[in-house]
Amino acid sequence: MDFKAHIRTIEDFPKPGISFKDITTLLQDKDAFHAAIEAIAQYYEYKQVDVVTGPEARGYIFASALAFRLGAGFVPIRKPGKLPYKTRRISYALEYGEDALEVHEDAFTAGQKVLVVDDLLATGGTIRASIDLVESFDVHVEGVAFLIELTSLEGRKRLGNYDAISLVQY
Amino acid sequence: MDFKAHIRTIEDFPKPGISFKDITTLLQDKDAFHAAIEAIAQYYEYKQVDVVTGPEARGYIFASALAFRLGAGFVPIRKPGKLPYKTRRISYALEYGEDALEVHEDAFTAGQKVLVVDDLLATGGTIRASIDLVESFDVHVEGVAFLIELTSLEGRKRLGNYDAISLVQY
Repeated sequence: MDFKAHIRTIEDFPKPGISFKDITTLLQDKDAFHAAIEAIAQYYEYKQVDVVTGPEARGYIFASALAFRLGAGFVPIRKPGKLPYKTRRISYALEYGEDALEVHEDAFTAGQKVLVVDDLLATGGTIRASIDLVESFDVHVEGVAFLIELTSLEGRKRLGNYDAISLVQY
Repeated sequence: MDFKAHIRTIEDFPKPGISFKDITTLLQDKDAFHAAIEAIAQYYEYKQVDVVTGPEARGYIFASALAFRLGAGFVPIRKPGKLPYKTRRISYALEYGEDALEVHEDAFTAGQKVLVVDDLLATGGTIRASIDLVESFDVHVEGVAFLIELTSLEGRKRLGNYDAISLVQY
Protein backbone atom coordinates (compact mmCIF):
# COMPACT_ATOMS: atom_id res chain seq x y z
CA MET A 1 0.00 0.00 0.00
CA ASP A 2 1.35 3.40 -1.02
CA PHE A 3 0.19 5.25 2.08
CA LYS A 4 1.78 8.50 0.99
CA ALA A 5 -0.49 8.61 -2.05
CA HIS A 6 -3.47 8.78 0.34
CA ILE A 7 -2.13 11.68 2.43
CA ARG A 8 -2.90 15.24 1.32
CA THR A 9 -0.55 18.14 1.99
CA ILE A 10 -2.20 21.45 2.86
CA GLU A 11 0.13 24.43 2.66
CA ASP A 12 0.05 27.21 5.26
CA PHE A 13 -2.12 25.39 7.82
CA PRO A 14 -2.60 26.10 10.66
CA LYS A 15 -0.30 29.06 9.97
CA PRO A 16 1.85 30.39 7.12
CA GLY A 17 4.91 28.28 6.33
CA ILE A 18 3.52 25.01 7.71
CA SER A 19 2.89 22.11 5.31
CA PHE A 20 0.13 20.23 7.11
CA LYS A 21 -0.19 16.49 6.47
CA ASP A 22 -3.92 15.79 6.12
CA ILE A 23 -4.65 12.17 7.01
CA THR A 24 -8.43 12.38 6.56
CA THR A 25 -8.05 11.32 2.92
CA LEU A 26 -6.36 8.12 4.09
CA LEU A 27 -8.86 7.46 6.87
CA GLN A 28 -11.90 7.76 4.65
CA ASP A 29 -10.47 5.22 2.16
CA LYS A 30 -11.46 1.87 3.60
CA ASP A 31 -8.59 -0.03 2.02
CA ALA A 32 -5.92 2.47 3.06
CA PHE A 33 -7.26 2.79 6.61
CA HIS A 34 -7.46 -0.96 7.01
CA ALA A 35 -3.99 -1.49 5.59
CA ALA A 36 -2.47 1.13 7.91
CA ILE A 37 -3.95 -0.46 11.03
CA GLU A 38 -2.93 -3.93 9.83
CA ALA A 39 0.64 -2.86 9.12
CA ILE A 40 1.16 -1.53 12.63
CA ALA A 41 -0.74 -4.40 14.23
CA GLN A 42 1.26 -7.08 12.44
CA TYR A 43 4.53 -5.44 13.45
CA TYR A 44 3.69 -5.48 17.18
CA GLU A 45 1.39 -8.49 17.33
CA TYR A 46 3.98 -10.89 18.74
CA LYS A 47 4.47 -8.63 21.75
CA GLN A 48 0.94 -9.34 22.98
CA VAL A 49 0.36 -5.91 24.46
CA ASP A 50 -2.29 -5.47 27.15
CA VAL A 51 -3.18 -1.85 26.41
CA VAL A 52 -2.92 0.61 23.52
CA THR A 53 -2.90 4.29 24.44
CA GLY A 54 -2.55 7.64 22.70
CA PRO A 55 -3.22 11.37 23.07
CA GLU A 56 -6.45 13.04 21.92
CA ALA A 57 -7.91 13.55 19.43
CA ARG A 58 -6.27 12.14 16.29
CA GLY A 59 -4.25 9.68 18.34
CA TYR A 60 -7.50 7.98 19.34
CA ILE A 61 -8.28 7.09 15.74
CA PHE A 62 -5.26 4.81 15.44
CA ALA A 63 -4.93 3.75 19.07
CA SER A 64 -8.54 2.58 19.36
CA ALA A 65 -8.60 0.58 16.13
CA LEU A 66 -5.25 -0.98 17.08
CA ALA A 67 -6.51 -1.87 20.55
CA PHE A 68 -9.45 -3.66 18.97
CA ARG A 69 -7.28 -5.40 16.38
CA LEU A 70 -4.72 -6.51 18.98
CA GLY A 71 -7.28 -7.67 21.54
CA ALA A 72 -6.01 -5.05 23.98
CA GLY A 73 -7.67 -2.44 26.17
CA PHE A 74 -7.63 1.26 25.26
CA VAL A 75 -6.58 4.13 27.53
CA PRO A 76 -7.27 7.72 26.37
CA ILE A 77 -4.63 10.33 27.22
CA ARG A 78 -6.55 13.58 27.57
CA LYS A 79 -6.08 17.31 27.80
CA PRO A 80 -6.44 18.65 31.37
CA GLY A 81 -9.91 18.82 32.92
CA LYS A 82 -11.59 16.29 30.62
CA LEU A 83 -11.29 13.15 32.74
CA PRO A 84 -13.85 12.79 35.53
CA TYR A 85 -11.94 10.65 38.05
CA LYS A 86 -8.68 11.27 39.91
CA THR A 87 -5.90 11.87 37.42
CA ARG A 88 -2.15 11.76 37.03
CA ARG A 89 -0.80 14.73 35.04
CA ILE A 90 2.34 15.61 33.16
CA SER A 91 3.30 19.09 31.95
CA TYR A 92 5.59 19.62 28.99
CA ALA A 93 7.14 22.53 27.13
CA LEU A 94 5.79 23.82 23.83
CA GLU A 95 7.52 26.24 21.49
CA TYR A 96 5.75 29.00 23.41
CA GLY A 97 4.42 28.13 26.85
CA GLU A 98 3.49 24.68 28.08
CA ASP A 99 0.76 22.10 27.88
CA ALA A 100 -0.29 19.11 29.96
CA LEU A 101 -1.74 15.63 29.55
CA GLU A 102 -3.71 13.47 31.97
CA VAL A 103 -4.76 9.87 32.49
CA HIS A 104 -6.83 8.39 35.27
CA GLU A 105 -4.80 7.25 38.24
CA ASP A 106 -6.15 3.71 37.77
CA ALA A 107 -5.67 3.66 33.99
CA PHE A 108 -2.79 1.16 34.02
CA THR A 109 -1.71 -1.74 36.22
CA ALA A 110 1.98 -2.20 37.02
CA GLY A 111 3.60 -4.72 34.71
CA GLN A 112 1.24 -4.26 31.78
CA LYS A 113 2.66 -4.19 28.26
CA VAL A 114 1.67 -0.95 26.53
CA LEU A 115 1.76 0.31 22.93
CA VAL A 116 1.77 4.12 22.58
CA VAL A 117 0.28 5.49 19.34
CA ASP A 118 -0.18 8.86 17.66
CA ASP A 119 -0.88 9.93 14.10
CA LEU A 120 2.23 12.07 13.63
CA LEU A 121 5.76 12.34 15.02
CA ALA A 122 7.01 15.92 14.67
CA THR A 123 9.32 17.33 17.37
CA GLY A 124 8.22 14.55 19.70
CA GLY A 125 7.14 16.70 22.64
CA THR A 126 3.64 15.27 22.96
CA ILE A 127 4.67 11.64 22.55
CA ARG A 128 7.61 12.00 24.94
CA ALA A 129 5.24 13.41 27.58
CA SER A 130 2.77 10.61 26.84
CA ILE A 131 5.45 7.96 27.31
CA ASP A 132 6.72 9.51 30.52
CA LEU A 133 3.19 9.68 31.89
CA VAL A 134 2.51 6.05 30.97
CA GLU A 135 5.81 4.83 32.40
CA SER A 136 5.11 6.48 35.74
CA PHE A 137 2.73 3.51 36.26
CA ASP A 138 5.61 0.98 36.12
CA VAL A 139 4.35 -0.55 32.89
CA HIS A 140 6.47 -1.74 29.95
CA VAL A 141 6.27 0.44 26.83
CA GLU A 142 6.64 -2.22 24.13
CA GLY A 143 6.53 0.16 21.21
CA VAL A 144 5.65 3.59 19.85
CA ALA A 145 3.83 3.80 16.51
CA PHE A 146 2.97 6.63 14.14
CA LEU A 147 1.34 6.89 10.77
CA ILE A 148 3.64 9.76 9.75
CA GLU A 149 7.14 10.85 10.79
CA LEU A 150 8.55 14.27 9.86
CA THR A 151 12.17 13.18 9.90
CA SER A 152 13.73 16.65 9.61
CA LEU A 153 12.30 17.58 13.03
CA GLU A 154 14.27 14.72 14.62
CA GLY A 155 11.51 13.72 17.04
CA ARG A 156 12.88 10.18 17.00
CA LYS A 157 15.89 11.35 19.02
CA ARG A 158 13.56 12.05 21.93
CA LEU A 159 12.20 8.51 21.85
CA GLY A 160 15.43 6.90 22.98
CA ASN A 161 15.60 3.14 22.47
CA TYR A 162 11.92 2.34 22.12
CA ASP A 163 10.83 0.10 19.29
CA ALA A 164 9.34 2.97 17.25
CA ILE A 165 7.89 2.72 13.75
CA SER A 166 6.21 5.06 11.29
CA LEU A 167 4.47 4.01 8.08
CA VAL A 168 5.29 7.17 6.11
CA GLN A 169 8.27 9.52 6.33
CA TYR A 170 8.62 13.08 5.00
CA MET B 1 -21.35 -9.01 28.80
CA ASP B 2 -22.64 -6.81 31.62
CA PHE B 3 -21.44 -3.52 30.15
CA LYS B 4 -22.98 -1.48 32.95
CA ALA B 5 -20.71 -3.20 35.48
CA HIS B 6 -17.73 -1.73 33.60
CA ILE B 7 -18.99 1.87 33.61
CA ARG B 8 -18.18 4.10 36.56
CA THR B 9 -20.46 6.90 37.72
CA ILE B 10 -18.74 10.08 38.94
CA GLU B 11 -21.02 12.43 40.83
CA ASP B 12 -20.90 16.20 40.31
CA PHE B 13 -18.74 16.16 37.15
CA PRO B 14 -18.24 18.37 35.25
CA LYS B 15 -20.50 20.44 37.53
CA PRO B 16 -22.65 19.90 40.65
CA GLY B 17 -25.73 17.78 40.06
CA ILE B 18 -24.37 15.89 37.04
CA SER B 19 -23.83 12.12 37.34
CA PHE B 20 -21.09 11.58 34.78
CA LYS B 21 -20.82 8.16 33.13
CA ASP B 22 -17.12 7.34 32.97
CA ILE B 23 -16.45 4.88 30.14
CA THR B 24 -12.67 4.72 30.61
CA THR B 25 -13.08 1.75 32.96
CA LEU B 26 -14.82 -0.14 30.15
CA LEU B 27 -12.32 0.90 27.48
CA GLN B 28 -9.29 -0.20 29.46
CA ASP B 29 -10.79 -3.68 30.01
CA LYS B 30 -9.83 -5.59 26.88
CA ASP B 31 -12.74 -8.01 27.09
CA ALA B 32 -15.37 -5.33 27.72
CA PHE B 33 -14.01 -3.03 25.02
CA HIS B 34 -13.86 -5.86 22.49
CA ALA B 35 -17.36 -7.05 23.36
CA ALA B 36 -18.82 -3.54 23.01
CA ILE B 37 -17.36 -3.04 19.54
CA GLU B 38 -18.44 -6.54 18.50
CA ALA B 39 -21.99 -6.02 19.73
CA ILE B 40 -22.46 -2.88 17.65
CA ALA B 41 -20.61 -4.35 14.66
CA GLN B 42 -22.67 -7.52 14.58
CA TYR B 43 -25.90 -5.54 14.73
CA TYR B 44 -25.04 -3.42 11.67
CA GLU B 45 -22.78 -5.83 9.79
CA TYR B 46 -25.41 -6.92 7.25
CA LYS B 47 -25.85 -3.32 6.11
CA GLN B 48 -22.31 -3.27 4.69
CA VAL B 49 -21.68 0.38 5.46
CA ASP B 50 -19.01 2.26 3.51
CA VAL B 51 -18.07 4.76 6.20
CA VAL B 52 -18.28 5.09 9.98
CA THR B 53 -18.24 8.62 11.38
CA GLY B 54 -18.54 10.34 14.75
CA PRO B 55 -17.80 13.59 16.61
CA GLU B 56 -14.56 14.23 18.48
CA ALA B 57 -13.08 13.18 20.80
CA ARG B 58 -14.77 10.24 22.55
CA GLY B 59 -16.83 9.45 19.46
CA TYR B 60 -13.62 8.59 17.63
CA ILE B 61 -12.87 5.75 20.04
CA PHE B 62 -15.93 3.78 18.99
CA ALA B 63 -16.24 5.02 15.41
CA SER B 64 -12.66 4.19 14.50
CA ALA B 65 -12.65 0.68 15.96
CA LEU B 66 -16.02 0.02 14.30
CA ALA B 67 -14.77 1.29 10.95
CA PHE B 68 -11.87 -1.14 11.19
CA ARG B 69 -14.07 -4.03 12.31
CA LEU B 70 -16.64 -3.38 9.54
CA GLY B 71 -14.09 -2.88 6.77
CA ALA B 72 -15.29 0.69 6.32
CA GLY B 73 -13.59 4.06 6.05
CA PHE B 74 -13.57 6.55 8.93
CA VAL B 75 -14.55 10.23 8.76
CA PRO B 76 -13.80 12.47 11.77
CA ILE B 77 -16.39 15.12 12.61
CA ARG B 78 -14.42 17.94 14.21
CA LYS B 79 -14.81 21.12 16.18
CA PRO B 80 -14.40 24.28 14.05
CA GLY B 81 -10.93 25.24 12.87
CA LYS B 82 -9.30 21.82 13.26
CA LEU B 83 -9.66 20.51 9.72
CA PRO B 84 -7.08 21.77 7.24
CA TYR B 85 -9.00 21.53 3.95
CA LYS B 86 -12.24 23.18 2.81
CA THR B 87 -15.04 22.27 5.19
CA ARG B 88 -18.79 22.02 5.47
CA ARG B 89 -20.09 23.32 8.80
CA ILE B 90 -23.23 23.01 10.89
CA SER B 91 -24.13 25.15 13.89
CA TYR B 92 -26.44 23.90 16.62
CA ALA B 93 -27.94 25.21 19.83
CA LEU B 94 -26.59 24.32 23.26
CA GLU B 95 -28.28 24.95 26.58
CA TYR B 96 -26.47 28.28 26.63
CA GLY B 97 -25.15 29.55 23.31
CA GLU B 98 -24.26 27.45 20.30
CA ASP B 99 -21.57 25.19 18.95
CA ALA B 100 -20.57 23.95 15.50
CA LEU B 101 -19.16 20.86 13.80
CA GLU B 102 -17.24 20.45 10.56
CA VAL B 103 -16.24 17.81 8.06
CA HIS B 104 -14.18 18.17 4.91
CA GLU B 105 -16.20 19.01 1.84
CA ASP B 106 -14.91 15.83 0.17
CA ALA B 107 -15.43 13.61 3.23
CA PHE B 108 -18.35 11.65 1.76
CA THR B 109 -19.46 10.57 -1.70
CA ALA B 110 -23.15 10.73 -2.61
CA GLY B 111 -24.85 7.37 -2.18
CA GLN B 112 -22.48 6.00 0.47
CA LYS B 113 -23.92 4.03 3.38
CA VAL B 114 -22.89 5.64 6.66
CA LEU B 115 -22.98 4.58 10.32
CA VAL B 116 -22.92 7.49 12.83
CA VAL B 117 -21.43 6.69 16.24
CA ASP B 118 -20.91 8.45 19.56
CA ASP B 119 -20.21 7.27 23.08
CA LEU B 120 -23.29 8.78 24.73
CA LEU B 121 -26.82 9.85 23.77
CA ALA B 122 -28.00 12.59 26.15
CA THR B 123 -30.26 15.35 24.78
CA GLY B 124 -29.20 14.43 21.26
CA GLY B 125 -28.06 17.86 20.11
CA THR B 126 -24.59 16.82 19.00
CA ILE B 127 -25.68 13.65 17.23
CA ARG B 128 -28.60 15.39 15.53
CA ALA B 129 -26.21 18.02 14.16
CA SER B 130 -23.78 15.27 13.13
CA ILE B 131 -26.51 13.42 11.22
CA ASP B 132 -27.75 16.58 9.51
CA LEU B 133 -24.20 17.45 8.47
CA VAL B 134 -23.59 13.95 7.11
CA GLU B 135 -26.91 13.83 5.26
CA SER B 136 -26.15 17.10 3.49
CA PHE B 137 -23.83 14.95 1.32
CA ASP B 138 -26.76 12.86 -0.01
CA VAL B 139 -25.54 9.72 1.73
CA HIS B 140 -27.69 7.08 3.45
CA VAL B 141 -27.47 7.03 7.25
CA GLU B 142 -27.90 3.31 7.90
CA GLY B 143 -27.76 3.55 11.67
CA VAL B 144 -26.83 5.53 14.76
CA ALA B 145 -25.03 3.74 17.60
CA PHE B 146 -24.13 4.65 21.16
CA LEU B 147 -22.51 2.88 24.04
CA ILE B 148 -24.76 4.67 26.55
CA GLU B 149 -28.24 6.21 26.36
CA LEU B 150 -29.58 8.48 29.11
CA THR B 151 -33.23 7.69 28.46
CA SER B 152 -34.72 10.38 30.71
CA LEU B 153 -33.27 13.10 28.47
CA GLU B 154 -35.25 11.72 25.53
CA GLY B 155 -32.51 12.25 22.98
CA ARG B 156 -33.94 9.38 20.95
CA LYS B 157 -36.92 11.56 20.00
CA ARG B 158 -34.55 13.76 18.02
CA LEU B 159 -33.26 10.82 16.03
CA GLY B 160 -36.52 10.22 14.19
CA ASN B 161 -36.76 6.87 12.44
CA TYR B 162 -33.10 5.94 12.21
CA ASP B 163 -32.08 2.45 13.23
CA ALA B 164 -30.54 3.58 16.53
CA ILE B 165 -29.12 1.33 19.23
CA SER B 166 -27.41 1.78 22.60
CA LEU B 167 -25.71 -0.97 24.59
CA VAL B 168 -26.48 0.47 28.03
CA GLN B 169 -29.41 2.56 29.24
CA TYR B 170 -29.69 4.70 32.37
